[in-house]
Amino acid sequence: MKAALIEEKGGDFIVKDIDKPTPNENEVLIKVEACGICHSDNFVKAGAFPGIEYPRVPGHEVVGIIEETGKSVNNWKIGQRVGVGWHGGHCFECESCRRGDFINCQNGKISGISYDGGYAEYMTAPKEAVANVPEELSSVDAAPLLCAGITVYNALRNSGIRAGDLVAVQGIGGLGHLAIQYASKMGMRTVAISTSDSKKELAKELGAHHFINTEKQDASEELQKLGGAKLILATAPHSDAISSVVDGLGIDGKLLMVAATGEPIEVSPMQLLMGRKSAAGWPSGTAMDSEDTLNFSAMTGTKPMIEEYPLEKVNEAFERMMNNKARFRVVLKP
Amino acid sequence: MKAALIEEKGGDFIVKDIDKPTPNENEVLIKVEACGICHSDNFVKAGAFPGIEYPRVPGHEVVGIIEETGKSVNNWKIGQRVGVGWHGGHCFECESCRRGDFINCQNGKISGISYDGGYAEYMTAPKEAVANVPEELSSVDAAPLLCAGITVYNALRNSGIRAGDLVAVQGIGGLGHLAIQYASKMGMRTVAISTSDSKKELAKELGAHHFINTEKQDASEELQKLGGAKLILATAPHSDAISSVVDGLGIDGKLLMVAATGEPIEVSPMQLLMGRKSAAGWPSGTAMDSEDTLNFSAMTGTKPMIEEYPLEKVNEAFERMMNNKARFRVVLKP
Amino acid sequence: MKAALIEEKGGDFIVKDIDKPTPNENEVLIKVEACGICHSDNFVKAGAFPGIEYPRVPGHEVVGIIEETGKSVNNWKIGQRVGVGWHGGHCFECESCRRGDFINCQNGKISGISYDGGYAEYMTAPKEAVANVPEELSSVDAAPLLCAGITVYNALRNSGIRAGDLVAVQGIGGLGHLAIQYASKMGMRTVAISTSDSKKELAKELGAHHFINTEKQDASEELQKLGGAKLILATAPHSDAISSVVDGLGIDGKLLMVAATGEPIEVSPMQLLMGRKSAAGWPSGTAMDSEDTLNFSAMTGTKPMIEEYPLEKVNEAFERMMNNKARFRVVLKP
Amino acid sequence: MKAALIEEKGGDFIVKDIDKPTPNENEVLIKVEACGICHSDNFVKAGAFPGIEYPRVPGHEVVGIIEETGKSVNNWKIGQRVGVGWHGGHCFECESCRRGDFINCQNGKISGISYDGGYAEYMTAPKEAVANVPEELSSVDAAPLLCAGITVYNALRNSGIRAGDLVAVQGIGGLGHLAIQYASKMGMRTVAISTSDSKKELAKELGAHHFINTEKQDASEELQKLGGAKLILATAPHSDAISSVVDGLGIDGKLLMVAATGEPIEVSPMQLLMGRKSAAGWPSGTAMDSEDTLNFSAMTGTKPMIEEYPLEKVNEAFERMMNNKARFRVVLKP
Ligand SMILES: [Zn+2]
Ligand SMILES: [Zn+2]
Ligand SMILES: [Zn+2]
Ligand SMILES: [Zn+2]
Ligand SMILES: [Zn+2]
Ligand SMILES: [Zn+2]
Ligand SMILES: [Zn+2]
Ligand SMILES: [Zn+2]
Repeated sequence: MKAALIEEKGGDFIVKDIDKPTPNENEVLIKVEACGICHSDNFVKAGAFPGIEYPRVPGHEVVGIIEETGKSVNNWKIGQRVGVGWHGGHCFECESCRRGDFINCQNGKISGISYDGGYAEYMTAPKEAVANVPEELSSVDAAPLLCAGITVYNALRNSGIRAGDLVAVQGIGGLGHLAIQYASKMGMRTVAISTSDSKKELAKELGAHHFINTEKQDASEELQKLGGAKLILATAPHSDAISSVVDGLGIDGKLLMVAATGEPIEVSPMQLLMGRKSAAGWPSGTAMDSEDTLNFSAMTGTKPMIEEYPLEKVNEAFERMMNNKARFRVVLKP
Repeated sequence: MKAALIEEKGGDFIVKDIDKPTPNENEVLIKVEACGICHSDNFVKAGAFPGIEYPRVPGHEVVGIIEETGKSVNNWKIGQRVGVGWHGGHCFECESCRRGDFINCQNGKISGISYDGGYAEYMTAPKEAVANVPEELSSVDAAPLLCAGITVYNALRNSGIRAGDLVAVQGIGGLGHLAIQYASKMGMRTVAISTSDSKKELAKELGAHHFINTEKQDASEELQKLGGAKLILATAPHSDAISSVVDGLGIDGKLLMVAATGEPIEVSPMQLLMGRKSAAGWPSGTAMDSEDTLNFSAMTGTKPMIEEYPLEKVNEAFERMMNNKARFRVVLKP
Repeated sequence: MKAALIEEKGGDFIVKDIDKPTPNENEVLIKVEACGICHSDNFVKAGAFPGIEYPRVPGHEVVGIIEETGKSVNNWKIGQRVGVGWHGGHCFECESCRRGDFINCQNGKISGISYDGGYAEYMTAPKEAVANVPEELSSVDAAPLLCAGITVYNALRNSGIRAGDLVAVQGIGGLGHLAIQYASKMGMRTVAISTSDSKKELAKELGAHHFINTEKQDASEELQKLGGAKLILATAPHSDAISSVVDGLGIDGKLLMVAATGEPIEVSPMQLLMGRKSAAGWPSGTAMDSEDTLNFSAMTGTKPMIEEYPLEKVNEAFERMMNNKARFRVVLKP
Repeated sequence: MKAALIEEKGGDFIVKDIDKPTPNENEVLIKVEACGICHSDNFVKAGAFPGIEYPRVPGHEVVGIIEETGKSVNNWKIGQRVGVGWHGGHCFECESCRRGDFINCQNGKISGISYDGGYAEYMTAPKEAVANVPEELSSVDAAPLLCAGITVYNALRNSGIRAGDLVAVQGIGGLGHLAIQYASKMGMRTVAISTSDSKKELAKELGAHHFINTEKQDASEELQKLGGAKLILATAPHSDAISSVVDGLGIDGKLLMVAATGEPIEVSPMQLLMGRKSAAGWPSGTAMDSEDTLNFSAMTGTKPMIEEYPLEKVNEAFERMMNNKARFRVVLKP
């Protein structure tokens, strides 16, 4: 089968024929129909994740058709269309797993990092990493929802906000353009925060009720004029920008960060104490969370904005994604 | 009547005779029996709070007997023993008040800052700032519970922890020595974190199950060995020390800060994202929260460790408190 | 001024001229623009509420313009358009009020029952019972939202449901037709449950994704086919019908009842224990909840279906409402 | 090995030698040290559970030492002391399992019902049904905590109560005498409700702050005098008695039922609506919940009151338990 793989840390993608994988007893074999490119795929290219073994096929926004199931797999059927996201499997034995908190599995696997992912014609995945895809969604539209989508949908629905609350989405990119749609479809008074007016019209189309351009306006002040945000969803990994909106939180307001960066944000006890505020993080979700994300998206008509590329053009597609030129996600078709 | 007052920013306490106050229609007149000294009383001495008018009598940990009630006061009776804490009244008209969230009143008053407090033989207080004191508690024991006590009790009970959870109290001082008692009486597996072994024995007596000396041990590592903290209650305003325990949080762990300082703590999105962690602040409580604090303390036998001083020795008493020599709260008796 | 009043228990409405009321220091005077008729207004006609004094002007779905404010009223301005709902004021002194839980005030007043309401050209209301009306809503549309609307909006947003959950609305009447709109605009997978197909098309237009006709289908079975309801909002006071849907609850499902009836429902510990289910009640809300309801309605375009009547035709209008002939709320215009 | 088994529906226990079981790849073999008798064991004797196959060895309060582990078991070690409770395993594949909500597994197994339990010298259990037992607890003391204990501990800690709340425990039996201890050790103001004064002294010793004798007093009235219960934990399956305490709930009060009976309780929408009350059920817990229960019990010194019997006297022991003569749990030792 054809696959796009990285052969060594720092290398480019090589598209070549490799053996079609065989599922073990707890796995399914998926014929890939679409695979989104995610910034985190760069972990494989850059070798920036501990313990990556090469060659490796990246890809954790995968949608395809089950072609074969392992002998201990009872909950998936051949022919079923399914997806695989970032959470690539868990051990069922560690304390987190025993608590049913699979996302925090101490031995968790990541699709396309711990094992070969979706930049290929076929991939295998553990049965616990697989999500059903509702028929209303096309495969290319569903793919990015399995990482970009689930991250913000799951963060939003578990954040404690109530319909009608003021919710700000900081950053209008791969995650942000989905978060704006989700927030407004959840009945939130939605504020889009961006660094230029170029995305203002788009933000309104996606459902934003208000738009703040941080080049011209102080985001914290503007949020306070609107009553103070109950939630600010920070979708981009820029700690300076995140720090600058903390004072836009209203009473009981929460700053929720979904983009991983190790650079500290600047926040003081005093800032949080007055008004009982908090800063928190959220880490995507499991395969069931993916199903919930896909179902909600299908029901509400939420779709990612995507650019499609054939697998052969993976290097070009990948560059476009990494340089933030894409609006807003790039999807490979094998 | 006798009162200890600050006549100008930076001045010492002067004990002198001033007019006994008269309650307005919504106030009660309280004959003071005990008044705790709090670090925040230094706002008055240092002039560090916006808009303080001098002379000013500080004191927001007040217990006494109602001697007179204003004509619109129906819920307090002459002869009733009551307390007044930091939250000194609210406007009933702002949005927070209309939501019943009095602690966030946009026009809130602070006892002993917005108006004269309890370093005196008498004080008046708005009826909404007054809490009933259960008979099981002596006045000197009850007084510090109205600020130091309520702050940590209310933070703990509203933090989402469940009985059996690992809860760390950082700092064993005025707030911390109460927090350890409360946490253990709430059924929490309680960890005391201190900077020396000198308080180890005391911590165990107060109910701590574990003790960490940060001079010798890495607090975060030790907490992880115990499973990771569901809650770390940071009771002292030292942002460096607070930052150093963030990695001691377990899954869904929360760092809860109750001591106000404007100095930023150091925490990154990545630290919070893995394990769904959060950092949050909590601001004491209302008069009803004070009642709950006092009732819980009476039921469980929780008492502050105090040193008593006559009102005349206010300057000496205040110095002892400010220099952290007291174990752990100082209470004035008029 | 003109008012429609009940002069004695069981009497009809008499429209006549009475003195225009004068607000006391904590009240506002409102020139009524619209007043919805609610089934609960029958308490006045039937004398079915303890302690009603006659003559009494009913009406607790009132929208109008402030014409005068009492001298202690600082948060309302003359000329401002406001509304008054069921919750007609509170005492600020009882334990519930001191906790900020005004709806449970032990001395609470009810508009149009404890004092004269909105079936008139003018009414007075305590300042704490008044809600701002956003300009996007017409007065006749806003009026029913102050009782029918707030009850279901507030119940829904505080029920713990998350966007995407399966939410059933039982009964498509005054409350139900609003609940369907709110639920779907909150991103819920919304099921309308009715007793005939006659409202099926309407239900879909209001936003329902599914429709169950209990004449032809077993509602519990149908809900289970859809995965089991996280929430069933029972909007009509029919305990038999309510009991029949309990088994339609999914895991962690909640039956939430907003229509008051003293007739027991039938539910066993076993039914609730399996799947951690619950049955609960919800009692409308305060003036701030009304504001939230109106703002959410304005933002999402939610409107009641109404029939307008001049105040003079109050008896006809009232009959129409009581006999459930109206689709779905009747609004009087003075 | 020796085992006490039921050979047919309605039969007595026969103690005889049967083959020692062999663990499959996902199971452990446990040398039983103690096994509590539970009312639910009667399901086996009476044949009152669908699908029971005979002969069957009951027993779902089992503590013992692991003697062998299946080849896919990595989280348990030979020689480790462990326990097995009611929840006897799950499928990992159904929707509930995929959500991590194992207790609601659609293919869940029950120890001693789906497979042979702990009335024997040895038993096997799936690895996911096994809990570690802390060394502070003896095996006979730990055994009843795996069903009676977990049920009430888990119900209490997940009920939303906060330390200091008024919590009533209805029924002082196997579950109730543990619930009183847990509630008071969680810092709850604990009320014991019983049908006679004979258990008054005991209730106080177990930690109850108040005692209500329903023969002499109206429980609802008494609870209201104490402020109204935030939680009433109904531990006995008597729907009449349960119904009689509903009006003892305070604001936001919850009636939580842990004893399974199909007989309806009597509760009306009106009763729940005023004060936002609820009635709910709770179904024990998983192996991790058992571990939490055991750890909390060890930390707080909570123990069941038990009577020990040798396995040979199983019929006598069982009768004593079924007739409610035991104080309060009976434990078999093989
Ligand atoms: Zn794991
Ligand atoms: Zn990704
Ligand atoms: Zn203080
Ligand atoms: Zn205010
Ligand atoms: Zn009404
Ligand atoms: Zn009140
Ligand atoms: Zn299952
Ligand atoms: Zn049992």
